Amino acid sequence: MALQHFFTTLFFSLFIAFLSSSFQPLASSSSPFNHPPRFPTTTNPPRSQARPNEAQAPDYRYETRYFTQQLDHFSFLELPTFQQRYLINTENWLGPQRLGPIFFYCGNEGDIVWFAENTGFVWEIAPQFGAMVVFPEHRYYGESVPYGSREEAYKNATTLSYLTAEQALADFAVLITDLKQNLSATDCPVVLFGGSYGGMLAAWMRLKYPHIAIGALAASAPILQFEDIVPLETFYDIVSSDFKRESSTCFNYIKHSWNEIASIGQTRNGLVQLSNTFHFCRPLNKTDDLWNWLESAYSYLAMVDYPYPANFMMPLPGHPIKEVCKRIDGQPAGTSLLERIYEGVNVYYNYTGETKCFELDEDPHGLSGWNWQACTEMVMPMSCDPESSMFPPYKFNYSDYEEGCIRNYGVKPRPKWITTEFGGHKIDATLKKFGSNLIFSNGLLDPWSGGSVLQNISESVVALVTEEGAHHLDLRASTQNDPDWLVEQRATEIKLIKGWITEYHQKNKVMFDI
Amino acid sequence: MALQHFFTTLFFSLFIAFLSSSFQPLASSSSPFNHPPRFPTTTNPPRSQARPNEAQAPDYRYETRYFTQQLDHFSFLELPTFQQRYLINTENWLGPQRLGPIFFYCGNEGDIVWFAENTGFVWEIAPQFGAMVVFPEHRYYGESVPYGSREEAYKNATTLSYLTAEQALADFAVLITDLKQNLSATDCPVVLFGGSYGGMLAAWMRLKYPHIAIGALAASAPILQFEDIVPLETFYDIVSSDFKRESSTCFNYIKHSWNEIASIGQTRNGLVQLSNTFHFCRPLNKTDDLWNWLESAYSYLAMVDYPYPANFMMPLPGHPIKEVCKRIDGQPAGTSLLERIYEGVNVYYNYTGETKCFELDEDPHGLSGWNWQACTEMVMPMSCDPESSMFPPYKFNYSDYEEGCIRNYGVKPRPKWITTEFGGHKIDATLKKFGSNLIFSNGLLDPWSGGSVLQNISESVVALVTEEGAHHLDLRASTQNDPDWLVEQRATEIKLIKGWITEYHQKNKVMFDI
Repeated sequence: MALQHFFTTLFFSLFIAFLSSSFQPLASSSSPFNHPPRFPTTTNPPRSQARPNEAQAPDYRYETRYFTQQLDHFSFLELPTFQQRYLINTENWLGPQRLGPIFFYCGNEGDIVWFAENTGFVWEIAPQFGAMVVFPEHRYYGESVPYGSREEAYKNATTLSYLTAEQALADFAVLITDLKQNLSATDCPVVLFGGSYGGMLAAWMRLKYPHIAIGALAASAPILQFEDIVPLETFYDIVSSDFKRESSTCFNYIKHSWNEIASIGQTRNGLVQLSNTFHFCRPLNKTDDLWNWLESAYSYLAMVDYPYPANFMMPLPGHPIKEVCKRIDGQPAGTSLLERIYEGVNVYYNYTGETKCFELDEDPHGLSGWNWQACTEMVMPMSCDPESSMFPPYKFNYSDYEEGCIRNYGVKPRPKWITTEFGGHKIDATLKKFGSNLIFSNGLLDPWSGGSVLQNISESVVALVTEEGAHHLDLRASTQNDPDWLVEQRATEIKLIKGWITEYHQKNKVMFDI
Repeated sequence: MALQHFFTTLFFSLFIAFLSSSFQPLASSSSPFNHPPRFPTTTNPPRSQARPNEAQAPDYRYETRYFTQQLDHFSFLELPTFQQRYLINTENWLGPQRLGPIFFYCGNEGDIVWFAENTGFVWEIAPQFGAMVVFPEHRYYGESVPYGSREEAYKNATTLSYLTAEQALADFAVLITDLKQNLSATDCPVVLFGGSYGGMLAAWMRLKYPHIAIGALAASAPILQFEDIVPLETFYDIVSSDFKRESSTCFNYIKHSWNEIASIGQTRNGLVQLSNTFHFCRPLNKTDDLWNWLESAYSYLAMVDYPYPANFMMPLPGHPIKEVCKRIDGQPAGTSLLERIYEGVNVYYNYTGETKCFELDEDPHGLSGWNWQACTEMVMPMSCDPESSMFPPYKFNYSDYEEGCIRNYGVKPRPKWITTEFGGHKIDATLKKFGSNLIFSNGLLDPWSGGSVLQNISESVVALVTEEGAHHLDLRASTQNDPDWLVEQRATEIKLIKGWITEYHQKNKVMFDI
């Protein structure tokens, strides 16, 4: 699979350029990290890291069903259909007569079972609403792959070409419509939920299919992380400030580590030395693999910088960045810079202490669904500011990005399509005029929060911002460790959703009375 | 081109069924007319009828330009792009600094030049708004065909598969976005116009792309003519009542003519006799060609039942149905029923009197773009009520419809797709909550008005209904013969559009002031 080497190649070019620039990591024309920005999902953690404890998976009850979907909703090309998996629970549903609501989670880029297990909020609140719960899987992920198998579906640009957000939204619309019709529930209100990319889908669905759903909770949904709507440095600036707020020493150690790694990597036996320092099972082939391994850890740590121990992507302590920095800063005097860094990221990759040495994936950033989406519609440009961030300086270069996508995936991105289709520029005006019953929830520690909606737009388009929150913590199941602000945030969300449903019921009653 | 024989075959089956049912045109399982419902365009009138006088084409000034479009906006399949033609006039435009508006006509199923020439309203009002005027052509029509030629584009179901409303809307969105960017006019407000299918596109565009356009005038746009949203008999009931209101005698003559034709057609030499009565140049091959020829005349007459002489599809007198009925009713006693009918439809097919005999098109309802659209998304079910209409009784049968589409076009319709994608059921609630700055204008003589929005929904979603209006008369150029109600209707439209733009300008000023 020739497509798999895209980012590897991309980064190798960077590394050569880097070496020839006397180790000054000046603004490069290629990305400093060999992958497009991604959200935390099960498909993302490298194989080297500790796995979530399967035994702890919550016991939500649902039926697993399958629905036949068109592969292309927007053309009439003769194409095979595919089976979309969805999880459904109707135990608490009030039923059609009482206009029982339907809670519909917009599945994102991964196995829907994992999202269902990690979206406890929806399961917990469904009973008090008398709501049905539906978790549909996003096309091309989990079991919902066309062409009979993941291998066939991911074979090439032609088979992958229908992996787009618009098609996924149309899947949802068709599924809801059919489901309601079969249950004689056409009048039952649908409330959308989604986190991360799923949150983007929920928000877009609310805007594009207002006749389908009465409201949406879009958690940590960076719908503005496109073109130049938000500053390109935002993402890595937030990651950096998450570290800086814990310790400026820690921030500076990390900031200086990149050059140190590059210097050592260039020496004889340097790669072996680095591999030993970072406890890799096998010697590194190139320094950039280490850069990337570290950047992944920092970025994901920022996303899951939760206030209590969690097991979202992997087992982590509460306030994991604080813990990482404590380790980096707290080593005895004389500890080398890179040994400090190792001790820090060990919190992320090996909190359980079970891993003796780390395996780098052969190709951790090969042809994943999200890489494809990033090379087609989901072009989210990001730069690193050498002043404000702890990362090597980098200026996003679209030509290089495009070239890499064409060379390696055989596809040309359409970087302006998302904003043309869904809007984004001057989103305030659009949301104010057209949006309603929309919650954008964000935790400011989450680097994706910079690309989301952080201010109230109108009475019913509301931004719920938590200073100490990270990536859609509100969607997770409640715990005894939940801080007050989180309890309050969820209570506000419940209150708002109740308001939407009450309003809907009242309007419908009025309509029935006429 | 095997596809061309769809409706011919369909109707032939009907005819056989018809003969075997002892000439009682009972509710049949096939459509009584060999084409799906269509709107009046240049592509629709049979070649036999008088042509519009080319010399009378109005002299609107514009540049013709071409824009490269994706063939499938919603997949990343490697497909050839195509050139979308658009007409543009910037002479009166206030320009970007003064936020000069852009008047954008949503091109429908035909040559855009013809629509531009028949949409005088937009040209006439543009100067007082300081508006740019843009008339983009709908994909697969006029010059805007993919695959290099109309022949190639219409070759089969594969090449035609991208002829959909959603793709057309995406074309418009991409074109507007690019155009504004190139003119540094991203902040200039766009107002959409459209009549008939173009009006449906304008309304849907306003709902689906609220970030692209600030308002839409959707004239004679039957966005509810899907599934069972409006009674299936509505269309032919309105055609019928247009005749009945002129003369119930006329209505009854027509009502009884179908059986008379069938009876005569079954006799020896009956087809020759009918051909002579109706002045066909060549003998009819089958009775249903005559049925269809008559139904076309009545339906189109209802659409263009304008209060003054017009040359929209063909030269016609003012109040043409009144004229038709005058001829049908006014023949001397002893004139046969079918001779009366002939004299009547002669008004439609041969008002200028230049045609000596009528040629039936060999295949007037072959593979036109609209037939394709009707067999994919635009499934508008229609029945004929034997009580209220003057047409042969008929109950729409979806299975037969689908079967015909599969057999003849190689495509399976998706009859629920339009309402899933754009809404339609309970449209009031959707429009009330999400719509704004939308005008639905309709003339009640127009049979398509029954499938449109005829009641005000909110302060800014307004229905302008005229008792005496027909198919989007308001979009046509003003004339000295315009009745007062038409003058008033246009004045209201201008006032509403001015309101949208003023509001937009005020909001933007406020935003600039912040």
